[in-house]
Amino acid sequence: MQWYVVASLLTLLTSSQGILTTLSQSNGGYKYDYATIPFLAEIFKLLVSSIFLWRECKKSPPARMTTEWKSVRLYPIPSIIYLIHNNVQFATLTYVDTSTYQIMGNLKIVTTGILFRLFLKRKLSNLQWMAIGLLAIGTTTSQVKGCGEASCDSLFSSPIQGYMLGVLSACLSALAGVYTEFLMKKNNDSLYWQNVQLYTFGAIFNMARLILDDFRGGFERGPWWERLFNGYTITTWLVVLNLGSTGLLVSWLMKYADNIVKVYSTSMAMLLTMVLSVFLFTFKPTLQLLLGIIICIMSLHMYFAPPSTLVDLPLAVKAAPQSGIEVSVNRRTDS
Amino acid sequence: MQWYVVASLLTLLTSSQGILTTLSQSNGGYKYDYATIPFLAEIFKLLVSSIFLWRECKKSPPARMTTEWKSVRLYPIPSIIYLIHNNVQFATLTYVDTSTYQIMGNLKIVTTGILFRLFLKRKLSNLQWMAIGLLAIGTTTSQVKGCGEASCDSLFSSPIQGYMLGVLSACLSALAGVYTEFLMKKNNDSLYWQNVQLYTFGAIFNMARLILDDFRGGFERGPWWERLFNGYTITTWLVVLNLGSTGLLVSWLMKYADNIVKVYSTSMAMLLTMVLSVFLFTFKPTLQLLLGIIICIMSLHMYFAPPSTLVDLPLAVKAAPQSGIEVSVNRRTDS
Repeated sequence: MQWYVVASLLTLLTSSQGILTTLSQSNGGYKYDYATIPFLAEIFKLLVSSIFLWRECKKSPPARMTTEWKSVRLYPIPSIIYLIHNNVQFATLTYVDTSTYQIMGNLKIVTTGILFRLFLKRKLSNLQWMAIGLLAIGTTTSQVKGCGEASCDSLFSSPIQGYMLGVLSACLSALAGVYTEFLMKKNNDSLYWQNVQLYTFGAIFNMARLILDDFRGGFERGPWWERLFNGYTITTWLVVLNLGSTGLLVSWLMKYADNIVKVYSTSMAMLLTMVLSVFLFTFKPTLQLLLGIIICIMSLHMYFAPPSTLVDLPLAVKAAPQSGIEVSVNRRTDS
Repeated sequence: MQWYVVASLLTLLTSSQGILTTLSQSNGGYKYDYATIPFLAEIFKLLVSSIFLWRECKKSPPARMTTEWKSVRLYPIPSIIYLIHNNVQFATLTYVDTSTYQIMGNLKIVTTGILFRLFLKRKLSNLQWMAIGLLAIGTTTSQVKGCGEASCDSLFSSPIQGYMLGVLSACLSALAGVYTEFLMKKNNDSLYWQNVQLYTFGAIFNMARLILDDFRGGFERGPWWERLFNGYTITTWLVVLNLGSTGLLVSWLMKYADNIVKVYSTSMAMLLTMVLSVFLFTFKPTLQLLLGIIICIMSLHMYFAPPSTLVDLPLAVKAAPQSGIEVSVNRRTDS
């Protein structure tokens, strides 16, 4: 499969995730326990990956699997980074309001580019760096608070700790992505075997979180397994399936494409969600949304288009000395 | 003189034009007749150009001057285009409010690029087209109405005639620029002789406008020459000198650089004015201003940086076959 097909699918599914989550609410709230969703999504991903792995093992040659503890012990690390990230996120929100938090979230596009360069040693051209910067600016532009919106002035008036935690949060989010890419690409193990390891630890960490929530809440709402399917509708199940599917696609991209492709997919998804919300939820279209979309599409083109289609000059410049060399060599041969 | 020095100077002067005009007001209004300013600026430009031309004529070889009517008759055309433009502008404002008009004004960046390509036959790379698009988006972004501003919803709700006139206005503005560039570059006449012709007609058209205003107003405020220096302060004179100087710099750029350089200068000036207003007039800095500035700086870099510093790939790709040719030629020589 081509990476851009998977990336487009990821954009569509990530975008519908937002829409489905909104549709699964009733009267502006959830009738089910939202914390159970990521746990079930991990279980779904684990099941799907196990089935594919089992099928792959029956073929010859069977799936490549590294089962040494030295390799397996690396797979809980993304879950651990996400755990730390969730706590930093929680701490950030005690200093800044949600809209400032949302704006700062765009920083992770830039931090992903930086860690991608530093840790995975992947070189980017200056134009690609500018494209990454523009993507972050485009998504931020689309989120600029419009005329007539309720809360103002919050953006530049939070305590410094809030901004520092926001930067830390963006770094952790990028680190998790870059580390997962390193993990998926470090050997040519079967993708499904790598997934099984990732999602087993993912399910364990999510379950641990549900148990911890129970203890924190003093079992007021009963143990977590009793809440598991409580208040679930068909839409809730779609949210689970959708979240699980996006996870599987991200895994595929980490192995066969890279973090930057994923960042573009999810950024485009955010804009698509806003456009769909205009039609589905009478969300008011704004000039900044339109500008943000144009900026992001330009950024996409700048990053992925072959450089020779973007600039004409180097071809002409290079052509001249090249033919010059040929002529001088020929002259020498003649004399 | 290097074009970027002149362009930077134009940015500084255009930016101070906005500041000076605001400073020349008292109690939010003008104590002098603002329509007299462009007329005096034309006179100033005409005087300066005449002096330089006179000095150039004394040198040997004397200034190159084409004095045939066939050539001279082309010089009133920019003034005529501006006259039509002013009337279209006036008509546009009967359909749309000033902030929508301001936003639509950014269209002239794109129309200048298009007419520059069509009429002056100048080729631009895809990246340069994107840079021009981004410049327009950047300036528009900086003007997005912020949270808490008074009038809302006006942008997408004007009658269609308003938008069509806005596009026409952008085309006329671009046409005037592109035509002036054609005029300045069509032969290697002395810049000062070309200026003298341009500004003579400019002064005549501006005077005609003042007279027309008098007839329209039924001479209620007396004839225009009586209002000429009425209520002028030092700041008013600085506005005249400044407007005249920017005109001279634009002329220089049209002959020795091009319209795109001018568009970048004046767009950057607009952003600089907004930044200076933050300090001088307690104008509130907004996220969209910051984003707009970053977008425009990126656009500037994309347009003017040598393509080889932006993309790395073509050099590596081109280097391989080039050395291949050398080797094969040498081998042929040896045998």
